[in-house]
Amino acid sequence: MQRMVYVFGDGKADGNQGLKNLLGGKGANLAEMTLLGLPVPPGFTITTDVCTHFYKNNRAYLPGLEKEVDRAMQKIEELVGARFGDSKNPLLVSVRSGARASMPGMMDTILNLGLNDETVAGLCRQSDNERFAYDAYRRFIQMYADVVLGVSSHHFETLLEQARRNRQVQSDAELGVQDLKNLVNEFKRVVLHETSQTFPLDAKAQLWGAIGAVFGSWMSSRAISYRRIHKIPEDWGTAVNVQAMVFGNMGADSATGVAFTRDPGTGEKRFFGEYLVNAQGEDVVAGIRTPQPINRESSTDSEAKTLEEIFPKTYSQLVTVYRNLEKHYQDMQDIEFTIQKGKLYLLQTRTGKRTASAAVRIAVDMVNEKLIDKEEAIARVTPAQLEQLLHPRLDPRVPKKIIAKGLPASPGAASGTVVFSSEEAETERKAGRDVILVRHETSPEDIAGMDAARGILTALGGMTSHAAVVARGMGKPCVAGCGSINIDYRKQQFTVGELVIQRGNTITLDGATGEVIEGHVPTVNSQVDQYFTEFMNWVDEFRKLRVRANAETPNDVKVARQFGAEGVGLCRTEHMFFEESRIAAVREMILSETRPQREVALQKIFPMQRDDFIAIFKEMKGYPVTIRLLDPPLHEFLPHTREEMEELAHMMNTAVDNIEAKVKALHEFNPMLGNRGCRLGISYPEIYRMQVRAIMDAACFLVTKKDFKIVPEIMLPFIATVEEFKLLREEVVQVCNEVMAQHKVNIDYLLGTMIEIPRAALIADDLAKEAHFFSFGTNDLTQMTLGLSRDDAGSFLPRYVEKGIFKQDPFVTIDQRGVGELIKFACERGRKSAPNLKIGICGEHGGDTETIGFCHRMGFDYVSCSPFRVPVARLSAARAQLAKKEVSSTD
Amino acid sequence: MQRMVYVFGDGKADGNQGLKNLLGGKGANLAEMTLLGLPVPPGFTITTDVCTHFYKNNRAYLPGLEKEVDRAMQKIEELVGARFGDSKNPLLVSVRSGARASMPGMMDTILNLGLNDETVAGLCRQSDNERFAYDAYRRFIQMYADVVLGVSSHHFETLLEQARRNRQVQSDAELGVQDLKNLVNEFKRVVLHETSQTFPLDAKAQLWGAIGAVFGSWMSSRAISYRRIHKIPEDWGTAVNVQAMVFGNMGADSATGVAFTRDPGTGEKRFFGEYLVNAQGEDVVAGIRTPQPINRESSTDSEAKTLEEIFPKTYSQLVTVYRNLEKHYQDMQDIEFTIQKGKLYLLQTRTGKRTASAAVRIAVDMVNEKLIDKEEAIARVTPAQLEQLLHPRLDPRVPKKIIAKGLPASPGAASGTVVFSSEEAETERKAGRDVILVRHETSPEDIAGMDAARGILTALGGMTSHAAVVARGMGKPCVAGCGSINIDYRKQQFTVGELVIQRGNTITLDGATGEVIEGHVPTVNSQVDQYFTEFMNWVDEFRKLRVRANAETPNDVKVARQFGAEGVGLCRTEHMFFEESRIAAVREMILSETRPQREVALQKIFPMQRDDFIAIFKEMKGYPVTIRLLDPPLHEFLPHTREEMEELAHMMNTAVDNIEAKVKALHEFNPMLGNRGCRLGISYPEIYRMQVRAIMDAACFLVTKKDFKIVPEIMLPFIATVEEFKLLREEVVQVCNEVMAQHKVNIDYLLGTMIEIPRAALIADDLAKEAHFFSFGTNDLTQMTLGLSRDDAGSFLPRYVEKGIFKQDPFVTIDQRGVGELIKFACERGRKSAPNLKIGICGEHGGDTETIGFCHRMGFDYVSCSPFRVPVARLSAARAQLAKKEVSSTD
Repeated sequence: MQRMVYVFGDGKADGNQGLKNLLGGKGANLAEMTLLGLPVPPGFTITTDVCTHFYKNNRAYLPGLEKEVDRAMQKIEELVGARFGDSKNPLLVSVRSGARASMPGMMDTILNLGLNDETVAGLCRQSDNERFAYDAYRRFIQMYADVVLGVSSHHFETLLEQARRNRQVQSDAELGVQDLKNLVNEFKRVVLHETSQTFPLDAKAQLWGAIGAVFGSWMSSRAISYRRIHKIPEDWGTAVNVQAMVFGNMGADSATGVAFTRDPGTGEKRFFGEYLVNAQGEDVVAGIRTPQPINRESSTDSEAKTLEEIFPKTYSQLVTVYRNLEKHYQDMQDIEFTIQKGKLYLLQTRTGKRTASAAVRIAVDMVNEKLIDKEEAIARVTPAQLEQLLHPRLDPRVPKKIIAKGLPASPGAASGTVVFSSEEAETERKAGRDVILVRHETSPEDIAGMDAARGILTALGGMTSHAAVVARGMGKPCVAGCGSINIDYRKQQFTVGELVIQRGNTITLDGATGEVIEGHVPTVNSQVDQYFTEFMNWVDEFRKLRVRANAETPNDVKVARQFGAEGVGLCRTEHMFFEESRIAAVREMILSETRPQREVALQKIFPMQRDDFIAIFKEMKGYPVTIRLLDPPLHEFLPHTREEMEELAHMMNTAVDNIEAKVKALHEFNPMLGNRGCRLGISYPEIYRMQVRAIMDAACFLVTKKDFKIVPEIMLPFIATVEEFKLLREEVVQVCNEVMAQHKVNIDYLLGTMIEIPRAALIADDLAKEAHFFSFGTNDLTQMTLGLSRDDAGSFLPRYVEKGIFKQDPFVTIDQRGVGELIKFACERGRKSAPNLKIGICGEHGGDTETIGFCHRMGFDYVSCSPFRVPVARLSAARAQLAKKEVSSTD
Repeated sequence: MQRMVYVFGDGKADGNQGLKNLLGGKGANLAEMTLLGLPVPPGFTITTDVCTHFYKNNRAYLPGLEKEVDRAMQKIEELVGARFGDSKNPLLVSVRSGARASMPGMMDTILNLGLNDETVAGLCRQSDNERFAYDAYRRFIQMYADVVLGVSSHHFETLLEQARRNRQVQSDAELGVQDLKNLVNEFKRVVLHETSQTFPLDAKAQLWGAIGAVFGSWMSSRAISYRRIHKIPEDWGTAVNVQAMVFGNMGADSATGVAFTRDPGTGEKRFFGEYLVNAQGEDVVAGIRTPQPINRESSTDSEAKTLEEIFPKTYSQLVTVYRNLEKHYQDMQDIEFTIQKGKLYLLQTRTGKRTASAAVRIAVDMVNEKLIDKEEAIARVTPAQLEQLLHPRLDPRVPKKIIAKGLPASPGAASGTVVFSSEEAETERKAGRDVILVRHETSPEDIAGMDAARGILTALGGMTSHAAVVARGMGKPCVAGCGSINIDYRKQQFTVGELVIQRGNTITLDGATGEVIEGHVPTVNSQVDQYFTEFMNWVDEFRKLRVRANAETPNDVKVARQFGAEGVGLCRTEHMFFEESRIAAVREMILSETRPQREVALQKIFPMQRDDFIAIFKEMKGYPVTIRLLDPPLHEFLPHTREEMEELAHMMNTAVDNIEAKVKALHEFNPMLGNRGCRLGISYPEIYRMQVRAIMDAACFLVTKKDFKIVPEIMLPFIATVEEFKLLREEVVQVCNEVMAQHKVNIDYLLGTMIEIPRAALIADDLAKEAHFFSFGTNDLTQMTLGLSRDDAGSFLPRYVEKGIFKQDPFVTIDQRGVGELIKFACERGRKSAPNLKIGICGEHGGDTETIGFCHRMGFDYVSCSPFRVPVARLSAARAQLAKKEVSSTD
């Protein structure tokens, strides 16, 4: 029969790190530490198999379990030199759960198990400290009653408070022995009253009660729902860890502490930690007493008493331990230790959490120290950390008053005074003030205001709403879809419940968490340092997938290059139309009644577009630039309020009614699925002709000056049929030929198609015969495949994610099961027709790590994302490549 | 070497009906008629291969062609006893094109070829009629100059007009010999002036000019674009038919006529036709002289001179001919004949065009006469004809002033006075007046007005706009998306260009053509007679596909049953919400702030919904009823104007601002892709619970009364994920169990899903494991797969169809290449998971013939369409089955 209980202690262990499935994370780790020769209090682990059997057999234990537990306990007794339940020299234990992965909803910890009215006397003797012993006893009753017996903690808290009031003291530490003794009795009475049973005083009964509670917590509703969401199989089960107690609060020769093998804030290579004399682990966390640095390097406080000074022998022991641990685990460790009457015990070691910049530095240093290789370094830094690194963030040490929470639409953090219109944002900005633009939603007319604001907050819209997309493009924090704020433009204020925030009040946005905070919170700038640069170089060594940026302004393009973009994957020409100096001509074009009128207006836009392209080609010297021809429906460019219409009418010297009629005529019920993209190109060929002319004129101009080689990639949006592509190709080719003839130069150019309408994916085999490249427009493809308007999904999407209908926001991470199926279909069929077909992605998903992994597996040539996400995408691409390698090497 | 020229004449022919590809339709037909022993003027056909070679070889003829043509011409000369180009006894010929299928843009006919200044004298002698000969000569020059030499006809018309004016006569027939001689000379001068060349007088040169013109016309731009649109391969080529001329205008012993072997109007079995003495075919068509009936049965005019009386011998010859022809072709024939100097010639026989009711009657009669079998009868009546049969149509004999043309959104025809609001429509209707409701577009609030109107005209919206869908459901004519009308509600008028149509003016709509006609045009009612009934019985014998109806009112359900529907495929529960007595409760429900409030409102709707279902189940006794739970976004039920909001506020005893705020909060940018369908069911579970309760309560109530068996089919709309389906299933099952327990009865019910979001199709394998049935909602599936909002497509869809980007309106006929691919994917995957999965279609496409064929091939169980289309769908299903059989039998 298989072993059900695994013992560890005194350098020996039945298990090890490799038995994580059987022993749970904690159990395996305790065994491993013991095998490393570390001073770990001895103990044993009841396997997850026991748990699985427990539930398969109507909550019955495997036969023989009790005997194995008894045998294991005996072993611990031998190693500790004390006996479980013995009144003279009692062995006390802790009981903890331990699944494969840590899991909310599971039973946490019971300490000091084994105490009763008799053994407490033994503990007095062992510790020579009656107060300590009774304090331990009352803590145990409180913990056990709560966790095992289901007696709510507040009963005990009330009694404690009463005791403090009686003694007129502030903290429990000030209560005397008699107080504690009284409390023990009162606590037991509470248990009797609440459970109609006396508190179990038999140590063994206590132990089995605790074991049962651990197994029972596996089926707590919280654990069940956590497993459902995270798809953790029920039959994994949990283990139970029983370990001898050690005490850091046995007196002045005892202590407890936490240490990191490197600085978790900066990554610097130095031993770093804190400790408290005569304290338990929870005291360090509770923050009542200020912990002391373990060494001088851990503190700037020259007055502090370091562990190194007070316990020099133990400290040097600890240094040896940390060096061994780092060498063994090949990663920065987070160590918990306790000193009981001068003797060092290790309670835990685990991979230390660290800041993003520390993660990069540690990874780079460890490669240079030959502790790990580059591939491992890349695996050590998550794309999320890298992203954090690139944006300013709120100073974590400053307390925050969070007043609302929306979607974390664009990372970064910013404070500013509230304004409710783009015009005001611009005015305030010009006056040198930082503002946060607060709107129901933003529209293309808000671009200038968004540019002027430090951050954007919207009440409506999702992760890929206009506000979100533009803010990410600008690298500016944005909290979108913050439904709990009620904006009143007229009163120039917004309310959250009772709270009123008026124009001019200061708020702070955390775009990484979606938090809206009242008042000013200082931010911390993250730096791009030598470690970052070295790390990104390694990243580029490994990745196969190219990374481009979505950018249209010369500034964005420049930023993209600085972040390592290898081209522009999506240049949205319409963004160039919204500039104040251009919008008038654009509107004139739209409001033209005849084609000649329209051409006059287009002629005004032409030189501006051409100059844009010249600037972009120059910035992207040598790298490909994919330019998407006009995509949004024309009504997006028109004014919406009567006031704006009047202004326009005045400017265009026409009646406002004419303008209103045209706006009305262009109105669409579902603009997402209306007259846009290539449909406009077919309706108004002169618009696309102007744009193609501008692109080619720019390219020819630069090539003629022999500056460098340019291969413009012209992209047709919203293609649903091969016929559209062919019809428009005729136009494009004609214009290109004309321009090239004019410049007496011949340049290569590509003509490709967006794949953003499901039908385009379905006819990919035909399209691949005509187009030079595919670029998946996954925003629209997701909207149409899921029947989900990103601007409207705010009303139910959060609930959908919460209910687990969508595991992730499908506008952030590609929906592999649905949209991914279509992409796979398109890639397979497209490459079948044209094996060398160039395939990329230019939707917002192009910057998402998981999506990049998917694109990598689908054999994409490149991803394209907003400039600020380029490094994240580069890392994700490298990790995808390494993950693939792993998979294929285990094949 | 292969034969290039096929001769026919005197009962012998080189070709036959089977050689249509080589000889073209006309050539093959002429050969076949000759072989049947019919008196066909002899002639020959130059094959389509010659045409193909012509274009493959830089417009050069195959070597030896001239020799073959000469030999063929010699044969004709022998048979006729005259010589081509001979001045004494000339042979004159006609030259015609003839492709496999008749094709616009191809050269039509040149008659009298071979005439010149000398042969005209011979023709005088042959005909003993100088005027006839010169008239033939001037006609020939005119025709040849136009078709072969490219001289515009108007030159000749001007000269003819001048000649008539000189003579002060009205018609060309009154011109004398000298006039015609002068015209011949003037015509020749025009040719010289326009082409700088003399008119070709050599007969052989004329012939080769004509042959060249036929081949040349194959590459006319009109022919090319026709072929592109209809996907006719260029290498099919055209044949050339050269045939000896016969003349019905050689005197009183000559005549020309057209006859049908059965009455093309009613289908009655009687020989039926018209003729003119001393006339050419074109005179019959021109309508200058009134044709006479060929027999008494062909006319009600007892004064008329019949062919039977005047040419009794020829008539009896013709009777023999028509009987043989019908027997041979096994179909009603349309015969063209000419009597030249007492001798009968057949110039053409072809399948006769007929009205819809004639088509049905002829098919039924011919089966009863054992001429054809039932399968052939089904093949003879097109679904379009059946549709025509079911709707009143405009009297074809009445002239119409068409003022505008929109989309033929719902067939049928109606006249009435124009009104611009639904309220007015109702008022006028109550006053007993017929009205046409004219709106920019209609909304669910217009239902009552649409019901009151005789027809609906909208300026916006496509084939599946609200107006179109509802009108089709009501079997009422509708012209939608009529962009050329400008509606001014304020002035109570609409304009088309200069024309103003005011409220109260009468217009007529033809919903089958999309025509808007000024004034009243009488309609002809089509009748459902014994032939129709017999025919539909046969249809049902053959079809495998079940046909259901989309219906929700008891009346619609009743009509559907009468038309042979075998169940309800789609009962849209929201349509029940719009009734005036209910909308208040619905709005109360939507505007509720809390769930209990909402439940109070729902409780008001519940008994009405239950009664609806009771009525429907009763009408559909024994047939399945698929009920779709609430689908449209809630804002569709809310008022839109301030006025309506005020009214509602008053009624609900709340502030109008509250209502406006709610309307605003529910507004969506793209409602098509917003919070609708099952998303509502998840957001507001109480709505679906009420509906399910109403369905089950109705079913249990009826079953308890032991009336009949009912298996309700509950359908969840807008499913995109398996999780949605499972979550809602829990709710449905719970409610059903509750209701059944309450009624102490157990009934079977099915729970299925719409497949209308592309993702649903993509995960069909998973959905099939959960759902009892799939119903393809192809309206939405098309919108999303093509990225095409049906309400907005009006602005470009017509151009798309015109440019051939869409061969058909994808909202009428399923887009097989795109949407069809997705359906195929879903069927295959769905059936793989659940081989017996029930599959149907409930989109508008369910009534479209071509789509039904597709559904049949995909193995659907049923289609569902509007009640008035049920017979059309039944026929389409039978034809699809027979077509499939044909395909598999030729495998």
